[in-house]
Amino acid sequence: MSFEAWVAVHTPRVNAALDQLCPADGSPLREAMRYSLLAGGKRLRPLLCIAAAEAVGSEIAAVLPAACALEMIHTFSLIHDDLPAMDDDDLRRGLPTCHVQYGEALAILAGDALQALAFEIAPTHAVLLARACYQMCAGQAEDLAAEGQDIGLEHLQHIHSRKTGALLCASVVSGALTAPPEARAALTHYGEKIGVAFQIVDDILDVTGDDATLGKPAGSDLKHDKATYPKLVGLDESKRLARRAEQEALAALEPFGTLAEPLREIARYIVERNT
Amino acid sequence: MSFEAWVAVHTPRVNAALDQLCPADGSPLREAMRYSLLAGGKRLRPLLCIAAAEAVGSEIAAVLPAACALEMIHTFSLIHDDLPAMDDDDLRRGLPTCHVQYGEALAILAGDALQALAFEIAPTHAVLLARACYQMCAGQAEDLAAEGQDIGLEHLQHIHSRKTGALLCASVVSGALTAPPEARAALTHYGEKIGVAFQIVDDILDVTGDDATLGKPAGSDLKHDKATYPKLVGLDESKRLARRAEQEALAALEPFGTLAEPLREIARYIVERNT
Repeated sequence: MSFEAWVAVHTPRVNAALDQLCPADGSPLREAMRYSLLAGGKRLRPLLCIAAAEAVGSEIAAVLPAACALEMIHTFSLIHDDLPAMDDDDLRRGLPTCHVQYGEALAILAGDALQALAFEIAPTHAVLLARACYQMCAGQAEDLAAEGQDIGLEHLQHIHSRKTGALLCASVVSGALTAPPEARAALTHYGEKIGVAFQIVDDILDVTGDDATLGKPAGSDLKHDKATYPKLVGLDESKRLARRAEQEALAALEPFGTLAEPLREIARYIVERNT
Repeated sequence: MSFEAWVAVHTPRVNAALDQLCPADGSPLREAMRYSLLAGGKRLRPLLCIAAAEAVGSEIAAVLPAACALEMIHTFSLIHDDLPAMDDDDLRRGLPTCHVQYGEALAILAGDALQALAFEIAPTHAVLLARACYQMCAGQAEDLAAEGQDIGLEHLQHIHSRKTGALLCASVVSGALTAPPEARAALTHYGEKIGVAFQIVDDILDVTGDDATLGKPAGSDLKHDKATYPKLVGLDESKRLARRAEQEALAALEPFGTLAEPLREIARYIVERNT
């Protein structure tokens, strides 16, 4: 199966599961949750979870709740990060952000409720998800504190690894919780490396992308006077570092043979994407 | 042991466990979390959990993580409810609220991180806690939507049962997760009734209390044009309904004999408290 076909099989499956696990109930809160949760998006975290399950020979149906929980946590973080008190963004995935659409109070509660729902549907993954969720909050706090500061590459990498890396890595590991320790360790290494690649490319796209393609305002990092890879090491070196992280991620997948093909394709996609 | 002595034994134990499970790490995020988590408070939810464990003969050490998780979830909800976009309160437990002290961004993240930490430390209670957490968010959303609306007693009770009742009930049940189904059912009934009593008394205190005793502004419901028991049925009838709920709660405890004495005292305290 080509990667495109693989994505075309699993993305609708994830979307259907999300719709079913967070059904409309007539309440404005649920409407706000569904507005952000079902607004599209690449479903990168659920697909990582499913691809990892394939790599270790696990049943995909068994990891689907965890895959959906990851997307709920990701969506909760987007809703809160977009708030006026945080990054103050009006546009997300090409649509008005949750607080623009429903007001700040309901947006805060929709984020809170999505976090709660994630733990309800994937309780066997609670510790893994909770730790990643905590790291994500800590990373966002450090990111805000670093705005306008003159920070170095090491500090930037630390913030990135917590803010986005932790949940991406947890996405991979969550698909392989029942695999042997060596397999989990290799996938953790893969997860860490694609996390690095993801954030470097995110920084690059904030410089080189345009609003329409990104579905959110480009230049947002500049606006917030945030340290980024292109700012610290230049565009060319940023691209080189992203490619190196991709290669390291691919190397970690060697023991899995062809079963890891979707994970390989995702690593490539992360570096080559333009959105 | 008198109830005062019982409280004096278990409250410091809960506080020490909270301090240990959420230790300072030098980060502003953790400082904001600890500011609100360790600001005092009656520790009603942890004490309910411990009292329920006693009633069914469970080890208290085994439920202490759940007891702390309940307080973290409660604190997270207070931090978010106090935000300018929600109830906009400046004072809590006699101190500036989290967002007044640390700014809105860090307050939002401190709440988010406390929810995550709760699930990390009590993963075996994830489903119970997550459901209660969700109800709490849903109740707060309904409460905000009902501001200035002309709602009836049934609607008010529904909001209350979700906003505060669900977590109080989960506090009781969490202490007895390994007990036989009949015991859990009886404790659930008790938990529902003290939830009702708690909220009626909260409404009463908002009318009759003063800022200094409450540690937060009295008259807050009036300010937000919220429906309350005293407003809907008068002060005397509110007191009668609180007493009735207390009696129903006590009746549910009959099968437990003297082991349920702390739970009985907590029910009495909930109705007789002035803060």
